[in-house]
Amino acid sequence: MDGAECLIRTLSENGIGICFMNPGTSEMRFVNALDRVPEMRGMLCLFEGVCAGAADGYGRIAGKPAATLLHLGPGLANGLCNFHNARKARTPVVSIVGEHTRQHLRYDAPLSADIEAFARTVSEHVRVARDPAGLGCEISGTIAAAVAPPGQVATLIIPADVSWSEVEASGPGVAPARRPLPAPETIGQAARLLRSPGAALLLGGTALSARAVAAAGRLAAHTGALVFADRNAPRMVWGRRGFLPRLMPYFPEAALEALAGVRNMVLVETQAPVSFFGYPETPSYLLPEGCPVSVLAARSEDGTSALEALAEECGAGPGAALANPSPKAEPGEAPLTCEAIGDALAALMPEGAIVSDETVSAQPILVERLRAAAPFERMPVTGGAIGQGLPVALGAACAAPDRKVVALEADGSAMYTLQALWTMARERLDVVTVIFANRRYRILEIEMQRAGIATPGPAAQAMMDIGRPDLDFVRMAEGLGVPATRAATVQEFWAQFRAAVETRGPVLIEAVL
Amino acid sequence: MDGAECLIRTLSENGIGICFMNPGTSEMRFVNALDRVPEMRGMLCLFEGVCAGAADGYGRIAGKPAATLLHLGPGLANGLCNFHNARKARTPVVSIVGEHTRQHLRYDAPLSADIEAFARTVSEHVRVARDPAGLGCEISGTIAAAVAPPGQVATLIIPADVSWSEVEASGPGVAPARRPLPAPETIGQAARLLRSPGAALLLGGTALSARAVAAAGRLAAHTGALVFADRNAPRMVWGRRGFLPRLMPYFPEAALEALAGVRNMVLVETQAPVSFFGYPETPSYLLPEGCPVSVLAARSEDGTSALEALAEECGAGPGAALANPSPKAEPGEAPLTCEAIGDALAALMPEGAIVSDETVSAQPILVERLRAAAPFERMPVTGGAIGQGLPVALGAACAAPDRKVVALEADGSAMYTLQALWTMARERLDVVTVIFANRRYRILEIEMQRAGIATPGPAAQAMMDIGRPDLDFVRMAEGLGVPATRAATVQEFWAQFRAAVETRGPVLIEAVL
Repeated sequence: MDGAECLIRTLSENGIGICFMNPGTSEMRFVNALDRVPEMRGMLCLFEGVCAGAADGYGRIAGKPAATLLHLGPGLANGLCNFHNARKARTPVVSIVGEHTRQHLRYDAPLSADIEAFARTVSEHVRVARDPAGLGCEISGTIAAAVAPPGQVATLIIPADVSWSEVEASGPGVAPARRPLPAPETIGQAARLLRSPGAALLLGGTALSARAVAAAGRLAAHTGALVFADRNAPRMVWGRRGFLPRLMPYFPEAALEALAGVRNMVLVETQAPVSFFGYPETPSYLLPEGCPVSVLAARSEDGTSALEALAEECGAGPGAALANPSPKAEPGEAPLTCEAIGDALAALMPEGAIVSDETVSAQPILVERLRAAAPFERMPVTGGAIGQGLPVALGAACAAPDRKVVALEADGSAMYTLQALWTMARERLDVVTVIFANRRYRILEIEMQRAGIATPGPAAQAMMDIGRPDLDFVRMAEGLGVPATRAATVQEFWAQFRAAVETRGPVLIEAVL
Repeated sequence: MDGAECLIRTLSENGIGICFMNPGTSEMRFVNALDRVPEMRGMLCLFEGVCAGAADGYGRIAGKPAATLLHLGPGLANGLCNFHNARKARTPVVSIVGEHTRQHLRYDAPLSADIEAFARTVSEHVRVARDPAGLGCEISGTIAAAVAPPGQVATLIIPADVSWSEVEASGPGVAPARRPLPAPETIGQAARLLRSPGAALLLGGTALSARAVAAAGRLAAHTGALVFADRNAPRMVWGRRGFLPRLMPYFPEAALEALAGVRNMVLVETQAPVSFFGYPETPSYLLPEGCPVSVLAARSEDGTSALEALAEECGAGPGAALANPSPKAEPGEAPLTCEAIGDALAALMPEGAIVSDETVSAQPILVERLRAAAPFERMPVTGGAIGQGLPVALGAACAAPDRKVVALEADGSAMYTLQALWTMARERLDVVTVIFANRRYRILEIEMQRAGIATPGPAAQAMMDIGRPDLDFVRMAEGLGVPATRAATVQEFWAQFRAAVETRGPVLIEAVL
């Protein structure tokens, strides 16, 4: 077989069945090898940022990596922003990047660039497969690096001539990775801390699963400890589950207030809370001065099992069932608001839905209203870099074809990687996209106020205004092959969202706010 | 003044009057400072790749830098692909990147990333302004680095708290950069070489200006030397100018044939020719074995004046006027082809137009047909990374508001940075975009054939097919605020393109092939 077939085969033999790609000339052999390994599903995206975000969404939901195949340094460059989010999510991704032939590199051709330097900004594991004889081992090594807990974007750069060289065999099998349980002393120490006044748990990483949150709920009921969730965790259960952790507030003032009474912070697969941005008047570090911090489970450990062990250690059995907020009935006609959208989603989203949440200023309202929804999972923006929402929804839909995926998208963020809609249309993925069209970078207006600038001048205002002209998401979605409608009133939104969840396949609703 | 005003003022005082931006929270002070320095025009783009490409297009046409203002590491990451093209073009760009406050950096907040590592992939000059007292000098130093011949993307990273710190004064003035003329011996030596049999000139960099090409034409007529143009030069004159250099062919077989008779190669602001990609059967280096290579003007020298001095040295005065091909009359009705589009453009484009050419498989046909056009300038893709065409057109239109800009866009490439249309609409820029909608990555089909794969399987074919569903550029353009039409026949295209050049403001034509 040639090197390209070795790649596709080694990935497939290690359980990687999907590759999000935007190939070029140097990757033609990989494309050609797809027909020889039918277990591998190649999925074309029209921009590399979509490939990177889709692999992130896939990995978060599937718990195993997808591959990406990108074209040289500039192709990888276009994927870096969403790889940044995947890096912060600790999502396992096998990132394959094609390179010029080994002998061509010395000539500084137009597309030559330092691919390793691009890759190192998002990957700890960056290798170049310079020797066809070692290709199989390099591929398996890259998979092993991607899946080693907590997970990472692992990069393998393959020169074109290595892809067309003859190789003997595919790479060796990669042993499944397991997250270790923390030591019993760690569980015991955390149990003692949780019984002290002002104890709190902060859950992140994979420890916002149904099991983890249920165990944290038993601990909260039994010990009185506060339970917080990392707002940038890759994936978290939400909705009518009885107990839910408190999402760490976005702005430091609110977070400082929420954390003011904490006297002992126990971390589960995350770090001590810090504000998203630094401000002149508030500290970046959000815990009260002198508050001790201990770790129940490191990022690479099994926080879910650790929480269950901790609940057992504390004798925190199932407590009384907690009441849930009830979804609202369909209201009468009124102009559309974020609150009204939240109520409609809570009433209409099917159980088990996956929500890719890239709303910004609307997010606190939605998170609150969606406590009344049937149990579902949220996927926040992990690295704060906008443009992941639609690609992550795309990848999640590939990983869980039997679950409804809902992408809640700010209009500004949607414009970063709107090309994702085309791949949803081509692959008939079951994704409902809701665009929150307030026609401005609302969060920046808020931040401008916070910076003490009460009335920005016209030049400044223009930089936060994405109307003039208004973006017409209905036309753009239709141009990309996705049926779309516009909702300007509450009744329109209820009717359109109800129809969307009752149909299979991609749909977009522009919610005009 | 605060650090932000110091930035905007220092840029403006050094002749930089436009800043393509997509700001975030850490850049709010810069946005606010725009109203205090009305000489600076802030231009909002909906994606950072548009900002980077627009600055490249502006710099190529204006011959002086634009600034970009991007948000943290991920914002810069989105600009890297088009900064790669700007790097290969040696375009002067002042790239300002906002950073977290200095004290916030230690906390690994979600958006924290190694901005310097991102920047070093495209910039030789990467600085962090850590000290408010030195801010003005750092800004002036970055401008100086950007404009030092041959030009570069120079990066300055400014922490948010430096932007809100009080500073005393704006930065010092930057001395204008001048390209030196090569030494007289170099001119003399080149004159001797040009008189030898098989001599050839290869023009690149800024040496494809009207003056440079005219001098090269006199040299060709007088000495018989062949004159080639670097196909990835940032900007070149084209059309009915009498003499035109021969564009270096894209595929190595054709380039090797074109160069077979060369016995002495003289370079002007470029390097010895190499193929775009490496292939199994052809060399990457395209000159005949043993062919001597000499340099008339290095990339940082004044190749145009060097060519004029060389023509004088050779006694190459104005020769007989060369005949030009005539533009064709409007033909009868027929299905649309690339050839027919080329003929229409040649007949209808106004003199002095600027063409951003991001066609791929159609390019050889267009370049040939456009020899019959009124004199204009082409801007090729310098670094081979697709997604520059529309942003570069946007920037060129800002630099030359009195010239018609025509963007010739492959459909696949257009999908990388289509957001550029919105800024064209908002700013009412005079750009006609023609989408070559063949609905496939045609160049990859050609490369697959070249790799000896005559009939790729269905999985491979799907990765080169960007129909299924068809992209509707008319709807997408309208969604972005740009009026658009579709042409499927020759008559439709002539009528629509004629109307487009007769109107001011952005227009898009989807040419269905």
